Amino acid sequence: MKRVPVDALTDFGKALLAARGAPEDVATAVARSLVYADMRGVASHGVVRLPIYLERLERGMVNAVAEPAPERDDGATVLLDGRNNFGAHVGRRAMGLAVERARAHGIALVGVKRSNHFGTAAFFVDAALAAGQVALVLSNASQTMPPVGGRRPFLGTNPLCIACPTPREAPFVLDMATSVVARGKIIFAARAEEPIPEGWAVDAEGRPTTDAAAGLEGSVLPVGGAKGFGLAMAIDILSGVLTGAGFGPTVNNMYENWQDPQDVGHAFLSIDITRFMPLETFSSRIDAYIDALKAAPRAPGVDELLYAGELEHRHAEAARAKGVALPSALVDDLDTIAMRLRIPHRLGAAGARAAE
Amino acid sequence: MKRVPVDALTDFGKALLAARGAPEDVATAVARSLVYADMRGVASHGVVRLPIYLERLERGMVNAVAEPAPERDDGATVLLDGRNNFGAHVGRRAMGLAVERARAHGIALVGVKRSNHFGTAAFFVDAALAAGQVALVLSNASQTMPPVGGRRPFLGTNPLCIACPTPREAPFVLDMATSVVARGKIIFAARAEEPIPEGWAVDAEGRPTTDAAAGLEGSVLPVGGAKGFGLAMAIDILSGVLTGAGFGPTVNNMYENWQDPQDVGHAFLSIDITRFMPLETFSSRIDAYIDALKAAPRAPGVDELLYAGELEHRHAEAARAKGVALPSALVDDLDTIAMRLRIPHRLGAAGARAAE
Repeated sequence: MKRVPVDALTDFGKALLAARGAPEDVATAVARSLVYADMRGVASHGVVRLPIYLERLERGMVNAVAEPAPERDDGATVLLDGRNNFGAHVGRRAMGLAVERARAHGIALVGVKRSNHFGTAAFFVDAALAAGQVALVLSNASQTMPPVGGRRPFLGTNPLCIACPTPREAPFVLDMATSVVARGKIIFAARAEEPIPEGWAVDAEGRPTTDAAAGLEGSVLPVGGAKGFGLAMAIDILSGVLTGAGFGPTVNNMYENWQDPQDVGHAFLSIDITRFMPLETFSSRIDAYIDALKAAPRAPGVDELLYAGELEHRHAEAARAKGVALPSALVDDLDTIAMRLRIPHRLGAAGARAAE
Repeated sequence: MKRVPVDALTDFGKALLAARGAPEDVATAVARSLVYADMRGVASHGVVRLPIYLERLERGMVNAVAEPAPERDDGATVLLDGRNNFGAHVGRRAMGLAVERARAHGIALVGVKRSNHFGTAAFFVDAALAAGQVALVLSNASQTMPPVGGRRPFLGTNPLCIACPTPREAPFVLDMATSVVARGKIIFAARAEEPIPEGWAVDAEGRPTTDAAAGLEGSVLPVGGAKGFGLAMAIDILSGVLTGAGFGPTVNNMYENWQDPQDVGHAFLSIDITRFMPLETFSSRIDAYIDALKAAPRAPGVDELLYAGELEHRHAEAARAKGVALPSALVDDLDTIAMRLRIPHRLGAAGARAAE
């Protein structure tokens, strides 16, 4: 592993995207989104995605210069056409709009169509939290998960994020996929030639399996069976069916489909807390909630009870101080791309500086 | 088991509630909510709750004559004071308001405080579906579930319901608790002296257990661990912290606390589909989604892939035709209460008629 300072990693990502024609604000949004995921310990949505993002851009599958534009605007609801720009950029615009409209109307929903993979949903909520709002972010994704009783992937591990401000260091940020486990954990088990627990995956024929390699050829299961599948489908309905984006089988895979844009759909909902109570009252109530949680009796061997987003926040603080930890092979891969694109930035060099 | 016609069961419930002073509309909402749950096969939220509802009413813990009233009204957002009436009645008022406001503003959120146990969340969504809206219903509940790493119950198995209209017989209605399994299944296993799967429950010390009896003394776990706990807490934030209702440890248990009202909180959100696309377009899109699901490859031994609410709808149709199946002991218990309240209705007699 190498540690790379947050700023150096962000600048590196921006430079690579800019070298492929992404405007400053788009390159910034995408680079920050990926680095943010790495900082929070969600490596699956981190700079490991930079190569595929660059390749989609390079091969014209993403349009980094098209500004997202409202297709319909009714004040508290907006239908935003992402115009096939990067999800991180489209999502930031959508969340900004939702926050502005929630301030005006108390609540707002921005539905998004024609977008792309938007990285970690938690990246978008800061604007809402800063405005004293509760945010809900949904997105669909390409097929990786079977229905309950299904044999093959049918819908995405459609994520949801719910966040609210707290007077603590860490806001409440629940950011979860609707699968029982990240596919990355199955990859890890397969490499280590270890079995996976029952309920994680089915094989290519839809049969339950504890064989990690068979699970990789098959599909990862929804969390809690019918509950996770129902949630994933509900998220697809709100972010895909309702917005005019792709849904279920019609969201295209960014690794496999090089003919069509992904047509990912999102939904950004924001609620102005002050329509219900003064922000100070809400703050002291959520503070009391967290106090009660921290004081609750713990199971043997458990040091602390955590709320959603707390661990990720600590991870991000550590990354800010010590740099982001990246596998050396990934650092080398990214530096090779930088060389090919003839930009002067090198993560290896930045990492060396971080180690001093 | 005895089968009781839907109308007879509803009239019976209304008569019992009315005999204890519930006004016509309140008695109707509560009776319909309980019967609706039984019809859908969700017996845990059915007329089995009638005795405790009546007892709360009898002992002055629920105020069936107080009309819910807006404490604050900003158009697209409303804070509704349930004034300690039954949750089914308060919830119907709140959903009606949300539907009306979503029609005017495109989206609306009605937060509810000072309410009570509201039964099955799916009961409320019909008004939204009939209006061509997508509904989201949340509620908190009294403590039954520990945090991840916790030893004792800390928050409720806070349910969520997401529903949208379809051109099919069954609308999409996801109605789920955030626990891995209904507590009733653990009760069932304990009675049968069978073990429960790992991950369902912890014992009274917070240790994982497969002993059903130990699980009953302990607590049922959140679905998917941190995911279910995070969801339950997010639901508590939206329906409890944000509304001024109880949350976490301050939602009172309706079976154990006879000093205080429950102070349950709910959130009713509704979205007008026509702000995003014509209803016909939405209908054909959700129809295409369901077509794709029905045509998706199935695992060995699976006859049909179902979406959320489909099975419950079929169950309800069967109950409408053949009557609601109730355990004979429950029928006897309810008839005993009817006798004590000096009302002429008898489920046993109605059931006999159903069997003719």
